[in-house]
Amino acid sequence: MSTKRLTSRQNRTIKHFIKVIERPEKYAPHGDMLEGEIVVEGPRPLGMALERGAKVRSVLVTEDFLKDDRHKEIVEALLQKEVSVNVVDRALMKEVSDTKTPQGIIALCRVRAYSLLDIKKPGFIVVSDGVHDPGNMGTMLRVSDAAGVRYFIALKGSVSPYNPKAVRSSAGSLFNINTVLSKREDFIKWCEEQGIPIVITDADAKESIYEFPPTGREVFVFGNETTGVSREIRSHASKVLKIPIYGKAESLNVATSAAILIYEMVRKIKSNLSR
Amino acid sequence: MSTKRLTSRQNRTIKHFIKVIERPEKYAPHGDMLEGEIVVEGPRPLGMALERGAKVRSVLVTEDFLKDDRHKEIVEALLQKEVSVNVVDRALMKEVSDTKTPQGIIALCRVRAYSLLDIKKPGFIVVSDGVHDPGNMGTMLRVSDAAGVRYFIALKGSVSPYNPKAVRSSAGSLFNINTVLSKREDFIKWCEEQGIPIVITDADAKESIYEFPPTGREVFVFGNETTGVSREIRSHASKVLKIPIYGKAESLNVATSAAILIYEMVRKIKSNLSR
Repeated sequence: MSTKRLTSRQNRTIKHFIKVIERPEKYAPHGDMLEGEIVVEGPRPLGMALERGAKVRSVLVTEDFLKDDRHKEIVEALLQKEVSVNVVDRALMKEVSDTKTPQGIIALCRVRAYSLLDIKKPGFIVVSDGVHDPGNMGTMLRVSDAAGVRYFIALKGSVSPYNPKAVRSSAGSLFNINTVLSKREDFIKWCEEQGIPIVITDADAKESIYEFPPTGREVFVFGNETTGVSREIRSHASKVLKIPIYGKAESLNVATSAAILIYEMVRKIKSNLSR
Repeated sequence: MSTKRLTSRQNRTIKHFIKVIERPEKYAPHGDMLEGEIVVEGPRPLGMALERGAKVRSVLVTEDFLKDDRHKEIVEALLQKEVSVNVVDRALMKEVSDTKTPQGIIALCRVRAYSLLDIKKPGFIVVSDGVHDPGNMGTMLRVSDAAGVRYFIALKGSVSPYNPKAVRSSAGSLFNINTVLSKREDFIKWCEEQGIPIVITDADAKESIYEFPPTGREVFVFGNETTGVSREIRSHASKVLKIPIYGKAESLNVATSAAILIYEMVRKIKSNLSR
C-alpha cells in the first residue's frame, strides 16, 4: 500500500492542513478566486465527495481507521485515484482536526466555484443574500440539490458555502450543485440582462407561495436570518411572496422557508401548474 | 424597583440556576414527570416566553442589561408579574450561563408537558420517534407551530423538547404548542383506540406526499436522523410516504422533511383537497 507515515507537526503537509482548517475562508473559493481548497472530515462526507467526483489532493488518516474493515472501500477508492495517503497517530490527528472527536480521516479537496458567466441555461435558481448561519447554508444547499436545482448563487455577504460546517450540513450536496459566487450588483445586472424575474419572500407579503405560478425560470432569493433580504435586492424584486403562518409562530427559519418554497415551486412545475 | 443583588456563587438561587443548567434533563418535564423547570436565556427567547404566558419563577440579570433602554419593556413585564429579579455582576453571570457570550439575562421558567390523555380533540399531530439533534427538534416545533399544529408528541428516546438548544431553535414555539410526552407502546395503543392512522415517511416509499389526501386527523411520525422511524412504529403504520428527490442528494434532513410534509398536508387540508 502506497502510504506515507507523518509524525511531525512541522511536516509541510501537516502544516498545510492546519492552515486550511484554521482559515477556511482564505483557501476556499471566495470573491473572484473561483478555485480553492477545502477540508472534508469524516468517512461519510468524504465518501460522498468521492462519489461525486471531488478532486482529493491528499489525506490524513489514523492507523485505526486504515485497519477498520468498514473503511476498506473508501481507502481503496483513494489509493486507486492515486491520492497521497498519509498515516498519522491519534494525537497528531487530534491536533489537526477541528472537531472534538476526530473521525480518523481528513481530506484536502480542490473545489471550483462558478461565476454568473458560467451559467449556461438558467432554470430554477436559488440565491442566498446574506444567509449567515453555516447550518442554514448547508441545509439550503441540500434541499436545493434534492429538488433538482442546478445553480445555487451565494451573494457576497453570505456565509461561505465552503465553510466547514456548511459543507457538513450539506451532506455532500455541495459537491452536486453548481455553486456560483457573485456580488449583489453584478447579480442584479445579470438578472436584468437575462430577463430573469427576482422573487423574494417576506412574512408581510400579500401574495402567498400557493398563489404564485412559477415559470421555472426565476431566481428565488433568501435573506439574512435577522435583517431579511437586502434593500438593493428588494428594490429589484418583481415578486414578494409569503409562506402563510397559521399558528402563533412569528416566522420560519430561513432554511425551513427555503425548503417549503422550493418544494412548492417544483411541485407546480412538475405538475404543469406553471405558466 | 424591587430587585435584589446576588454576589455569591453559594447563594441558594444561584446554585439552583446552575443545577438546572447543568442537568436540564433532570429538571425539565420527562417520563411521567409532566411539570418541570427550564432555563431560558437571552432577551428575545424570554420575551417570547413571556408573551406566550410562560410562568417565570426568577431571573438573573446584569446591571448593564437593566440600564439598557432596549430592554425596558421586558424588565417592566417581569416586575409587573412580580418575578424575583436578581442582579448579578458580569463575572457571576458568565459562571452561571451555558453560552459563550451571555446575553445579560437568564430566567427560570415553570413548564408543563401533556400526556396522551390530555389530548382533547386530536387533529393534525406531529410526532418525533427518536429525533436526536436538538436543533432539528426545535426546528420541528417551530414549523409545527407555524402550520397551526396543536399537539406535538415526543416519544421516549427522542431528545427532550425542553433541551436548551431545542428551546432556542424553536424560537418561542415551545411555549405555543402543546408538547406531549409518551412511551412508544402507549402511543401505538392510543392511536389504535382513537382510530388514528399512523403515517410515516421513508425515502424508499412508493407513494409520495403529493399523492396522499390527508383527512386532517392523522399522526405524522418522523424518525431518528440515522436509523429512521423505529421498527415498532413502522409495523403499525397505515401509510408510508416519500418526499420525492429530483436531484442527486441521497436524502433530506429530518427537520426539512417535516417542514415540506407538514406544509403540503396543511395546503391540502386548507384548500379542501383532503378527503
